[in-house]
Amino acid sequence: MQFHVYLAGQIHDDWRETIKQLAGQEQLPVTFTGPMENHDRSDNIGEEILGTQSDPIAKDEAASEINNLRTRLLLDKSDIVIAKFGEKYKQWNSAMDAATAVAQNKPLILIRPKELHHPLKELSERAQVTVETDEQAVKCLKYLFETD
Amino acid sequence: MQFHVYLAGQIHDDWRETIKQLAGQEQLPVTFTGPMENHDRSDNIGEEILGTQSDPIAKDEAASEINNLRTRLLLDKSDIVIAKFGEKYKQWNSAMDAATAVAQNKPLILIRPKELHHPLKELSERAQVTVETDEQAVKCLKYLFETD
Amino acid sequence: MQFHVYLAGQIHDDWRETIKQLAGQEQLPVTFTGPMENHDRSDNIGEEILGTQSDPIAKDEAASEINNLRTRLLLDKSDIVIAKFGEKYKQWNSAMDAATAVAQNKPLILIRPKELHHPLKELSERAQVTVETDEQAVKCLKYLFETD
Amino acid sequence: MQFHVYLAGQIHDDWRETIKQLAGQEQLPVTFTGPMENHDRSDNIGEEILGTQSDPIAKDEAASEINNLRTRLLLDKSDIVIAKFGEKYKQWNSAMDAATAVAQNKPLILIRPKELHHPLKELSERAQVTVETDEQAVKCLKYLFETD
Amino acid sequence: MQFHVYLAGQIHDDWRETIKQLAGQEQLPVTFTGPMENHDRSDNIGEEILGTQSDPIAKDEAASEINNLRTRLLLDKSDIVIAKFGEKYKQWNSAMDAATAVAQNKPLILIRPKELHHPLKELSERAQVTVETDEQAVKCLKYLFETD
Amino acid sequence: MQFHVYLAGQIHDDWRETIKQLAGQEQLPVTFTGPMENHDRSDNIGEEILGTQSDPIAKDEAASEINNLRTRLLLDKSDIVIAKFGEKYKQWNSAMDAATAVAQNKPLILIRPKELHHPLKELSERAQVTVETDEQAVKCLKYLFETD
Amino acid sequence: MQFHVYLAGQIHDDWRETIKQLAGQEQLPVTFTGPMENHDRSDNIGEEILGTQSDPIAKDEAASEINNLRTRLLLDKSDIVIAKFGEKYKQWNSAMDAATAVAQNKPLILIRPKELHHPLKELSERAQVTVETDEQAVKCLKYLFETD
Amino acid sequence: MQFHVYLAGQIHDDWRETIKQLAGQEQLPVTFTGPMENHDRSDNIGEEILGTQSDPIAKDEAASEINNLRTRLLLDKSDIVIAKFGEKYKQWNSAMDAATAVAQNKPLILIRPKELHHPLKELSERAQVTVETDEQAVKCLKYLFETD
Repeated sequence: MQFHVYLAGQIHDDWRETIKQLAGQEQLPVTFTGPMENHDRSDNIGEEILGTQSDPIAKDEAASEINNLRTRLLLDKSDIVIAKFGEKYKQWNSAMDAATAVAQNKPLILIRPKELHHPLKELSERAQVTVETDEQAVKCLKYLFETD
Repeated sequence: MQFHVYLAGQIHDDWRETIKQLAGQEQLPVTFTGPMENHDRSDNIGEEILGTQSDPIAKDEAASEINNLRTRLLLDKSDIVIAKFGEKYKQWNSAMDAATAVAQNKPLILIRPKELHHPLKELSERAQVTVETDEQAVKCLKYLFETD
Repeated sequence: MQFHVYLAGQIHDDWRETIKQLAGQEQLPVTFTGPMENHDRSDNIGEEILGTQSDPIAKDEAASEINNLRTRLLLDKSDIVIAKFGEKYKQWNSAMDAATAVAQNKPLILIRPKELHHPLKELSERAQVTVETDEQAVKCLKYLFETD
Repeated sequence: MQFHVYLAGQIHDDWRETIKQLAGQEQLPVTFTGPMENHDRSDNIGEEILGTQSDPIAKDEAASEINNLRTRLLLDKSDIVIAKFGEKYKQWNSAMDAATAVAQNKPLILIRPKELHHPLKELSERAQVTVETDEQAVKCLKYLFETD
Repeated sequence: MQFHVYLAGQIHDDWRETIKQLAGQEQLPVTFTGPMENHDRSDNIGEEILGTQSDPIAKDEAASEINNLRTRLLLDKSDIVIAKFGEKYKQWNSAMDAATAVAQNKPLILIRPKELHHPLKELSERAQVTVETDEQAVKCLKYLFETD
Repeated sequence: MQFHVYLAGQIHDDWRETIKQLAGQEQLPVTFTGPMENHDRSDNIGEEILGTQSDPIAKDEAASEINNLRTRLLLDKSDIVIAKFGEKYKQWNSAMDAATAVAQNKPLILIRPKELHHPLKELSERAQVTVETDEQAVKCLKYLFETD
Repeated sequence: MQFHVYLAGQIHDDWRETIKQLAGQEQLPVTFTGPMENHDRSDNIGEEILGTQSDPIAKDEAASEINNLRTRLLLDKSDIVIAKFGEKYKQWNSAMDAATAVAQNKPLILIRPKELHHPLKELSERAQVTVETDEQAVKCLKYLFETD
Repeated sequence: MQFHVYLAGQIHDDWRETIKQLAGQEQLPVTFTGPMENHDRSDNIGEEILGTQSDPIAKDEAASEINNLRTRLLLDKSDIVIAKFGEKYKQWNSAMDAATAVAQNKPLILIRPKELHHPLKELSERAQVTVETDEQAVKCLKYLFETD
């Protein structure tokens, strides 16, 4: 049995690579998907495909349609969602993706630094597990396949 | 026909009162629910009911369980969700509530200042309508009942 | 037991009034909802609430968001959908509303002139009943409450 | 991860071939299904299987049952629906298929010439993305698999 | 709390009246709905509303559309389904209604004479309760409201 | 793309073999499942697994539990259900399986001799297609894969 | 807005009366339902309605069908489930009812003495809130209606 | 066609091995998953991944989050659930898993010694089949694949 894991959340460091490497070292039968990690491309994808838009809001609207196409589909196909929150940026679509996973009855593993426990307390309560490091998240995945 | 509207989002100004007053002036057949608006009580409700907890994370966990009980139930009973975002605070559970509404196929009306269009672009794209003022949100409600 | 009936379809003649009158004469315990029937207001509602938009497509986008807010909510609350097609106009959102009813497992009564049987054959096959006149549609509603 | 894409909409030009070729050139891991594109056979399939029917409406009814068997099944198995509208014909079952995708929570990519923006505005608002050319639709598919 | 009970099954004796009388004597807070019990009218309703059809199969098709409109709606609104089988007739739509209730996760009370236990064994196994008399079925309803 | 087809209905002739042979000749990418066709074993499976039961009703109950385990699972995994009705026997669980397919939104192909049109009219109306022969049913399957 | 609360769990003390009294004192707009609390009647209801059964297992089977009819229906109609576990008895159907509530996405309030935390840890984790006393459970209900 | 079977229930004897061996001897196309069977590891997994917790309840909470992550996912992916109850321990999460299967409309095979029929009567009534031995459970699985 193989599981699809969607890696939601911040695109400002290389945490997805860490997760993939750790899972690879353990040879876990999981595949990973996630959002476009090239921030500029993510912001410009609307104009890249549809051409120049009339103003910044129209540009954002076009980009968000295509980013959401990707997120909806990949998140919908996933069996587990891991969402990572950091100190920077508003990260509202990280919260949106995490909440969507919960509402779709997919188990959510939340990674957040301890310092963020207060503003994330309601989301953490809805997550299946809350951890502080990438290593802990991968150990949760590993436990799915262990027999003793 | 009467609709239940859940007012998600920030609890730092009296926007819910404005919405209720405007809807009342129009005699719209809608009822409103929302989160506990007393911020301190919301943070302390876990210890208020369950007693002193061992540390701030346990206190937050206890509070969030009871706040989420309320949110899950009232949001689940609602027909429409209006979520308001402001400039201050992280507002991650506002994003969580808004995304939950979308995932449950409830129409979401998003109120946000124009300045926030970029960080909210994905959530805005999933909302049914995005507006900038409380008055515009109530006009949307009013339109539900008009015949010409 | 009382039923909500959504009257989808063309807004170019007064067929909704005919349906309501016939149902009223029979004192059927049904309520009716439907789209905004004032065609100009429906086209302008986006700018009416949100202000002047940058171009006709943006104006249409704004209007359609608010019209769809209404349609989604009222159609979702309905127990039966009656959709009427006429000879004029493209009527693509009539087809959209009718198909949405079918996909949501709500019984659809389709009213269409016999001449339209060919282009509507797939939609007619998905409808629960296809009739040719308003009177026949109301007789279907009446039969729901008769005991002999 | 591989996706199934249902190509709904007009069967009057070879747009499906264009889509398939473009996706093939990009070696996208997607498969395509769609309706019977032989228009005469689609109209006659009822009598082909069930024998001569008593009148044109019965012939249409028989054909639509078998066409809908195909559409329901293939659309139900798809992960994404692309629907293309053109200037000709009423295209009511294109609208029906597109709306069914939306109601089943499948992302819809709508292709339509700019000239049709007004009559398609409500359907466009429900689509995940609206584009004007086959190339743009395939670029949306391609973006699903790109990582930077 | 009040429950809606759909009385599916044979229309060849007055068992529905018996059920209603017994429930009335106990003043149970339940309402009852069911199919058209006038057998001729049920068979002719298609032609009554839509006019004379071309042959007996078309007549049956028309009638069944309108009978199914009624059944779908009333069964969908019910909280419990009671289905009664007797010795006569094929009763395939009784089996259809009973199975629909099971598939929709509504509790089914099956009334059948002991002699029919073998041909009804699979349906009986899916029913929540199988009884032999109308009185026993009403006692099951009564038990829903009793506290000691 | 490959489809699973559940062959519900009578187990008194070899129609399932005919269907499988015809589909095999056409090399259709479909697999078939169905109920236990050995009638005696189907009736005795409860006692075969659980031991002698106290009376015929208990024996039937035990058998039906295990037969329904099979039917629930295989029907649930199927994409299409073909149900065949013949002149003999009550065939109530054929009607149950067919109605379950409809209620689960799976397309149903109904095979029945023309003589049975009246008692099967409501079930036929809910089926996606009604045919009279095994050959016609297989032609419907074949049409799913044809492109011109 | 009024909520239905199902009181699952042990029937060996009068905790349901305590809950109802406390909620009554606070004039909370909630109604309560629950299982038959007369233990003997619950055990005998099968034979009471269906007559003497052949052995104790058949007697238990008959009783459980009618008790589950009640539980399924009342739990299905509830908005919140409160389940109380005590030190005595196996309480497997309390665990069944609590888990059913969770699986149906209804918020569960679990009441258990601290001593039972270890064997109930997985159920507690799935509950929305875990408390130790009836008073705490009612305070959770009260918080649903408070505004400051 | 291959089925996934989740083996819920007691972890105090080697019944899962027996089931797997018997299924292996019959070469049944089934795969098996289940909970962590190393009881100590299951109890300590929270602290193993997240570090030492502040008290036994926090330790249990942490362990149950990770155990439930596993159970939710594996049970959700399963086609059939087999739950075994024994004489020892409270086995409340066995009851929870079994009830979750029922609520998710997955067929449940319950294995229990005859002596437990009374406390398990409601759960047994909801199970698809109740048996007394591992061999009988595997015979039920085998019957799914037999054709005569």
